[in-house]
Amino acid sequence: MRVSVYITPKAGVLDPQGQAVLGSLHSLGYTEVADVRIGKYIVLELEGADPAQVEARVQEMCSRLLANPIIEDFRFEAGS
Amino acid sequence: MRVSVYITPKAGVLDPQGQAVLGSLHSLGYTEVADVRIGKYIVLELEGADPAQVEARVQEMCSRLLANPIIEDFRFEAGS
Repeated sequence: MRVSVYITPKAGVLDPQGQAVLGSLHSLGYTEVADVRIGKYIVLELEGADPAQVEARVQEMCSRLLANPIIEDFRFEAGS
Repeated sequence: MRVSVYITPKAGVLDPQGQAVLGSLHSLGYTEVADVRIGKYIVLELEGADPAQVEARVQEMCSRLLANPIIEDFRFEAGS
């Protein structure tokens, strides 16, 4: 089973990488871009996982290791 | 208008960051995880963009700046 995890900087947290990319996009002429936020996109392949447990287990993986809940939000969806 | 961009290492390209996270997940007891691939999730906020042009412009931003087409694949979707 494949689970896609999306991790984004929380609203209000500075995103210097996003600001750098925004500056570069403007330099290249893409002035319609008003803001850029950069997060992580993690694809987990699970094997032999109990479907009833997947949501709780992935939630735990995110808060224990994949995301930093102080400065990042995360969400995930199975099967895409 | 919000555009979400998903950038992933191409199949067959080594992903050392993903391998490191896989090792950590196993150490923490999440042995059902068979593989981890780590990419980027970029959210662009566009203002005053011509809707007819958005797809071509974002395609261009991805191949010129956001992704490295030699080792990364990208896809994007508007309005999520």
